[in-house]
Amino acid sequence: MKPAAIYLISDSIGETGEQVVHSILSQYSLEVENIKKYTHILTKNMLDAVLISISQERNVVVFYTLVQEELRQHLTDFAEKQNFLLVDILGNGLAAIAQATSLKPLGEPGIIRKMDREYFNRIEAIEFSVRYDDGKDPRGILKADLVILGVSRTSKTPLSMYLANKNIRVANVPLFPESEPPKEIYQISPTKVIGLTNTPEKLNSIRKERLKTLGLPQNASYAEMNRILEELEYADKIMKRIGCLVIDVSNNAIEETANLIFDYMKKTNTALINKNES
Amino acid sequence: MKPAAIYLISDSIGETGEQVVHSILSQYSLEVENIKKYTHILTKNMLDAVLISISQERNVVVFYTLVQEELRQHLTDFAEKQNFLLVDILGNGLAAIAQATSLKPLGEPGIIRKMDREYFNRIEAIEFSVRYDDGKDPRGILKADLVILGVSRTSKTPLSMYLANKNIRVANVPLFPESEPPKEIYQISPTKVIGLTNTPEKLNSIRKERLKTLGLPQNASYAEMNRILEELEYADKIMKRIGCLVIDVSNNAIEETANLIFDYMKKTNTALINKNES
Repeated sequence: MKPAAIYLISDSIGETGEQVVHSILSQYSLEVENIKKYTHILTKNMLDAVLISISQERNVVVFYTLVQEELRQHLTDFAEKQNFLLVDILGNGLAAIAQATSLKPLGEPGIIRKMDREYFNRIEAIEFSVRYDDGKDPRGILKADLVILGVSRTSKTPLSMYLANKNIRVANVPLFPESEPPKEIYQISPTKVIGLTNTPEKLNSIRKERLKTLGLPQNASYAEMNRILEELEYADKIMKRIGCLVIDVSNNAIEETANLIFDYMKKTNTALINKNES
Repeated sequence: MKPAAIYLISDSIGETGEQVVHSILSQYSLEVENIKKYTHILTKNMLDAVLISISQERNVVVFYTLVQEELRQHLTDFAEKQNFLLVDILGNGLAAIAQATSLKPLGEPGIIRKMDREYFNRIEAIEFSVRYDDGKDPRGILKADLVILGVSRTSKTPLSMYLANKNIRVANVPLFPESEPPKEIYQISPTKVIGLTNTPEKLNSIRKERLKTLGLPQNASYAEMNRILEELEYADKIMKRIGCLVIDVSNNAIEETANLIFDYMKKTNTALINKNES
């Protein structure tokens, strides 16, 4: 059957709403390209323009993240009259927090992505982590919040970028037997170092895939089992010497590895967490 | 008054729930560090362990993103008995889509971040964008989905990483009068090039801040108004010659600039969008 027309109305950039809608649609194997997204809807007039568009459709579901009470009411009234399905993403949560704290919500749109100090820190963390990606400059190790080590194809770079987005300055360093890692990795607290590892089978298949993508023959030593075992053994030795946490990423998505790291940081109570809570 | 104890229960990694909770708390000027997050809650037993912890607290608000009907029911029953505030982040949306499409939700946790082709494409896009950051290798320009140009401090790198996270392979190229940009920027479709610009005042203040962070004197030519005007004029000339879209980032957060780019790509119907919709 024809899928519903899906609208998303936000008074800010619509990221929260988008994530919720995607989570929901994934439970229905529905395509998500046809979401009609209206962002920065801040006045009744702007909202009316969206409502005109909605009223010309059939079978509509409207998701919204609006914090101004006036707009929320206007939309609710319209949905009742026109009889379309309306989903308030923030409403229940806003009401629950009000009840639990006896506070009144501010009703100010766009607070979450204010260009404040935190926002600039995040940008700096991203720039830092790009600058000190792939062992480019060992001085980064001493300045980083977190140092990530691992052999090729243990997802060091995407993990670093994900952590950078969470305001953590990461330096990542590749390990391979032909060259000693920079001495700086022994000069910082082991709690600031995370080793990544993967199973030989998985590395073998990821590296073969990688060679294919690069148009190279798949029997290059890079993807050979013996070579991989040698690299893993070498990496293991280095990580043991440091005494750092080692995470096997073979069954983890980036987000899961990152969550493990956050939990570890909380437990070890490193500078990182102090910084994030200050 | 004492803020509420806030719990977040998820059957996956909890990212969607976290974003919703942060959006809501930002409307109350409440600190967000004290969210107790329980992820990968997939069975009744695991849920019971969380419920024991909850029952020892006062003034609790529990947010949840659970898709298995059995767990949802179990949690709802418990909340009624123990009388705590429960906020279902996905429930209304799931019901609305079911009603609009006559489909049944799959009830499978963790679908959204499945390690499928799309996931690996995203990782590759991140690696690509890091590799071709800051004009490092002009060959990236020909292979990129999108090329970003701009003078120093127009947020090229964080924007590239943000777009990479959305599965777009970006090459970014700095512009400065002392060196011609790589010829490759004239060899691709102008619709694949985005120029970033900023006001001289803003650049002046951001660059001064930058020098301060680096411990350098703030009167370096890098932050001087004349130098900035010269750079902007040069960049303007290059962008005009290419005929690309130019975005003034002076009042935009990264996410907003990215949204403008997505809209533009939809309008110009470039390869990028075809790729994302295929």
